[in-house]
Amino acid sequence: MAEFPTKKCGVLGCTGSVGQRFILLLSKHPYLKLHALGASARSAGKKYKDAVSGLDSDVAGDIETEFQNAGLAVFSNSKNHRQDPTVPLVIPTVNLNHLDLIPHQRKLRSSDKGLLVCNSNCAVVGVAVPFAALQAAFGPIDFASVVTMQAVSGAGYPGVSSMDIMDNVVPFISGEEDKLETEARKILGTMTTDGTAFEEQSALRISAACNRVGVMDGHTACVALKFMRQPPPSAEECIEALRNYTSEANALGCPSAPNPPIKVFDEPDRPQPRLDRDLESGYTVSVGRVRKDDGGIFDLKFVSLSHNTVIGAAGGSIVNAEAAILKGYIQ
Amino acid sequence: MAEFPTKKCGVLGCTGSVGQRFILLLSKHPYLKLHALGASARSAGKKYKDAVSGLDSDVAGDIETEFQNAGLAVFSNSKNHRQDPTVPLVIPTVNLNHLDLIPHQRKLRSSDKGLLVCNSNCAVVGVAVPFAALQAAFGPIDFASVVTMQAVSGAGYPGVSSMDIMDNVVPFISGEEDKLETEARKILGTMTTDGTAFEEQSALRISAACNRVGVMDGHTACVALKFMRQPPPSAEECIEALRNYTSEANALGCPSAPNPPIKVFDEPDRPQPRLDRDLESGYTVSVGRVRKDDGGIFDLKFVSLSHNTVIGAAGGSIVNAEAAILKGYIQ
Amino acid sequence: MAEFPTKKCGVLGCTGSVGQRFILLLSKHPYLKLHALGASARSAGKKYKDAVSGLDSDVAGDIETEFQNAGLAVFSNSKNHRQDPTVPLVIPTVNLNHLDLIPHQRKLRSSDKGLLVCNSNCAVVGVAVPFAALQAAFGPIDFASVVTMQAVSGAGYPGVSSMDIMDNVVPFISGEEDKLETEARKILGTMTTDGTAFEEQSALRISAACNRVGVMDGHTACVALKFMRQPPPSAEECIEALRNYTSEANALGCPSAPNPPIKVFDEPDRPQPRLDRDLESGYTVSVGRVRKDDGGIFDLKFVSLSHNTVIGAAGGSIVNAEAAILKGYIQ
Amino acid sequence: MAEFPTKKCGVLGCTGSVGQRFILLLSKHPYLKLHALGASARSAGKKYKDAVSGLDSDVAGDIETEFQNAGLAVFSNSKNHRQDPTVPLVIPTVNLNHLDLIPHQRKLRSSDKGLLVCNSNCAVVGVAVPFAALQAAFGPIDFASVVTMQAVSGAGYPGVSSMDIMDNVVPFISGEEDKLETEARKILGTMTTDGTAFEEQSALRISAACNRVGVMDGHTACVALKFMRQPPPSAEECIEALRNYTSEANALGCPSAPNPPIKVFDEPDRPQPRLDRDLESGYTVSVGRVRKDDGGIFDLKFVSLSHNTVIGAAGGSIVNAEAAILKGYIQ
Repeated sequence: MAEFPTKKCGVLGCTGSVGQRFILLLSKHPYLKLHALGASARSAGKKYKDAVSGLDSDVAGDIETEFQNAGLAVFSNSKNHRQDPTVPLVIPTVNLNHLDLIPHQRKLRSSDKGLLVCNSNCAVVGVAVPFAALQAAFGPIDFASVVTMQAVSGAGYPGVSSMDIMDNVVPFISGEEDKLETEARKILGTMTTDGTAFEEQSALRISAACNRVGVMDGHTACVALKFMRQPPPSAEECIEALRNYTSEANALGCPSAPNPPIKVFDEPDRPQPRLDRDLESGYTVSVGRVRKDDGGIFDLKFVSLSHNTVIGAAGGSIVNAEAAILKGYIQ
Repeated sequence: MAEFPTKKCGVLGCTGSVGQRFILLLSKHPYLKLHALGASARSAGKKYKDAVSGLDSDVAGDIETEFQNAGLAVFSNSKNHRQDPTVPLVIPTVNLNHLDLIPHQRKLRSSDKGLLVCNSNCAVVGVAVPFAALQAAFGPIDFASVVTMQAVSGAGYPGVSSMDIMDNVVPFISGEEDKLETEARKILGTMTTDGTAFEEQSALRISAACNRVGVMDGHTACVALKFMRQPPPSAEECIEALRNYTSEANALGCPSAPNPPIKVFDEPDRPQPRLDRDLESGYTVSVGRVRKDDGGIFDLKFVSLSHNTVIGAAGGSIVNAEAAILKGYIQ
Repeated sequence: MAEFPTKKCGVLGCTGSVGQRFILLLSKHPYLKLHALGASARSAGKKYKDAVSGLDSDVAGDIETEFQNAGLAVFSNSKNHRQDPTVPLVIPTVNLNHLDLIPHQRKLRSSDKGLLVCNSNCAVVGVAVPFAALQAAFGPIDFASVVTMQAVSGAGYPGVSSMDIMDNVVPFISGEEDKLETEARKILGTMTTDGTAFEEQSALRISAACNRVGVMDGHTACVALKFMRQPPPSAEECIEALRNYTSEANALGCPSAPNPPIKVFDEPDRPQPRLDRDLESGYTVSVGRVRKDDGGIFDLKFVSLSHNTVIGAAGGSIVNAEAAILKGYIQ
Repeated sequence: MAEFPTKKCGVLGCTGSVGQRFILLLSKHPYLKLHALGASARSAGKKYKDAVSGLDSDVAGDIETEFQNAGLAVFSNSKNHRQDPTVPLVIPTVNLNHLDLIPHQRKLRSSDKGLLVCNSNCAVVGVAVPFAALQAAFGPIDFASVVTMQAVSGAGYPGVSSMDIMDNVVPFISGEEDKLETEARKILGTMTTDGTAFEEQSALRISAACNRVGVMDGHTACVALKFMRQPPPSAEECIEALRNYTSEANALGCPSAPNPPIKVFDEPDRPQPRLDRDLESGYTVSVGRVRKDDGGIFDLKFVSLSHNTVIGAAGGSIVNAEAAILKGYIQ
């Protein structure tokens, strides 16, 4: 395996909660060295505590394009370009092959160095990673029901008021269910062989309900699904497939790639966010209660847990960047 | 409407969390007067604080039978007799007609005064009440997915350790998913015309996942369902049916019957347990986010909220008792 | 006792958390009828959810003066005029006699109808009410140590971010310790016999430390104090004095005056905010663990609990208004 | 510095919350190797989850004595022997010199290898460590007021019910205030020059109030104190003394000794348990808001924070054991 080169990097929108996680992860990174921080005009001239905020999504898109045009490699956590057909939407333990659209993206934008890659919405990760493992083993999933219980850090800082979440559940997160349904189809889709387009897994139907709960970090999801293949694989076969799953991030040698990408629990009451969100520094997705659906509607049910600001945001983009370096897209 | 008579009553298992709720509700009741308290041998001779506990389910069943044989009317929150084919399992805003099996029950047990009626598991209520409203209007539900986020008081006192639930979700409650699936079928079923047997709604399939969250009172459920009737009613028609639903408890004039039995919210982020669990003193079930399933798997999705120790436990039995009095089963 | 007249009233700053409490309390009030609502320019044209905020303290002072000059009776929860020597700073179960400076205030401002009365900072109430009872019985307190554990609603809405308080304590509330120390001296002070000036209890020394904890409503305080009188009263005598305390609000017949103003608990682990904050609808201050200081530094120690948005804010002003009506200052 | 030898060790009472912390810390320890686990009879034959509990304090004392008599070095977290005049009560960053009573202890018990050393109650640590630093620089403290806000893990597992602490404060912890006051005097005391007795700092008066709050780990204390020396040192001088404090644990080269033993924060709102409890793996005590008492009762006020199951329990005993090895008391 080639030695990993040292690279300089910067964080734009550094005062937000994901920006802070980027800084924390990069401060410990063996090869990526933090050299620049940027924040929105909104934060300028304010005391730090008043400036804590992510990059406004109404300006993030344009700024990212400008940076790309200036020849920089941009790995974005904002939602602006996620549905752009020329921008890879990548979870590093699912679809690093989507990075191979970068040459085509450069040709379209007449750029020989810049690139733009998005990571997914934080709630998608807990679904897409186990789905990737199951589909690799047993073919396409037909439909799925996903009910999430999401951490407050997913709403940024200050985000959720303590008066709204203490002794409470908020059964609604604006825009989240739609993102979960649409982003999963792009991430789990394929690329055309000429490397110029993505083909979504458009037959995959997902019915999502997203809730906010009083948890600091870690999104929990109750998932139920039906396979196209009938009769379906048994729960035991599914556990085996989840446990044996490896991702291209491991094969490439990404320094931050989790091993394993999926941890499967046998205990009936796991995973739990406080106990399990920091597995492999938050890069591993945990899965438990993998079982047949006794209700007879679905083939399989399980619980998944993912750290929403690590593998679900900053950490996802860091492994994406590592992979882009190892694939030679960043010189 | 006949005047409601004053009756004496007692609470057995009075030191548990549901027992405490019974006492609280009865202390304010206009007609039911608390005259006796009983606790398990386990609690005898202990300081109160050490004795807080429900009746052991391994003795509750026998004790209830003895009381019934002694000619008393027993309304039980324990699980022992819920699946007994000669015992009504009743949510008062759903199936008070099941009380009409009492004459048959008495004949079987050669008793002319005693009776035994169970209320349901607390998690069933948030599903069975809106299902009753929808099925009354649109015919049988084919299948449903239910994911609950349940309050800690549902586990009794001391119940859930603070170390297990703070900043956490526990995605498992022992036995709960099974109870939810099987009790719903009995409660939503019918009675034979001769009043001697229940006929379960055996075609109803429910796939449940039950979670414990850091909420004091109030079980929240994300529900998705498909009707037998195709094409199904629209979301607007379902909202109308939920909003217009009335129960036999209202028609009978039960003093504690909630009006309305179901409150439908239009706000996108309601119901919420802290804000809405005490509607109509905890006897109303709240429903919100009633919408079509864009995922295409189900016909309808909604969120429901029910107060687990009021309509889901002690309060349910109190209205059951009121109805038994009004129906003439208690002299 | 004279019959209480019906009066129209309005709430300025109605979108804040205290404003909301005002509206809630007034909506149930038997005599005060809510006729007008006002909010800051900042809130104008915004959706309600974006406008939730109190009146900016940098404009509240001027606005209050304008309303007073227009002949209105203003009862204020803002801090602007609390230290004004011509403005009564009143906790209704402590110093309603301070309202008798109103004629002098009117003379100074050449107004024959307007008036301005402030309620105290929410953290002062849990100290000043028991101190009033003890000083009435045993003479002046020499010095006291007060450590508070304050609810998040005291910071307004959205106020404290869930990310700051979950699984946490914040041992600092800006400006709070100073307010507690200075406001107590004015409230517990006397009025000159000619009704033109307040005389602070300047010899009273208070050492305060204020903390924010993860509680929705209800400020808890650990209090220790030394009397001027030596030897001091016993703990039993102090309990008696606290329990027997009555306030002018009761004597006047204020409809919302709590009875008793102070509830003394004998249980060793009470009061607790979740269990006891709503006593007498939140107007009663609870006191417990009244005991001698075994450490030998103070004479007496106790725990107090007060509902910060009822007796500590909106409710305090409502009883102040009731008293002003009953005293004839509002026609 | 001599190389640290590798030693075998065991944990008795291994199923309790402190026992679990012992196992966690020892599993990562470079030299102490875990070879044996013991639990109470109460735990025998139970499933692990039912057996989680500390050693009953009514048997712990006798068992410890038996182990000591068998020639083992016993480092105890139980309260039984803490006040025994022949047993060192040691916080490793305060009074490791108390270990030098071990030869005398052995002589009394006719043992040439066994020894028994206790660590302190978890709430004492946040007081005794800064007091040691201040007294080393400025001479004895005359009196102090201490109000704690203690984490739920301090009550063991399952310990505090979620129903008791959610949205709540419990202003009472049985026996805790007394322990805080009496243990501090022994720990901060001296040893006679012949190494046969401890002399308590009996002139030190402490007035304590202990509260339980909804925090997982980390006890926060609001401390106010008066020095014997008058005029007292300034707040700046105290900050300097706290910051420069080093302990014998560092000088000896204990592998787990924190460096620094005390972290002083300049930020006005720190330390906070969630943010700061894990400093130096939980072995450092954090101090903030070091300031003059404007109330004029005390000389100095500050906030302290200590990790109750690390430096306040298991971690304390581990450093005690390291020191006993380095001092040659364990061969």
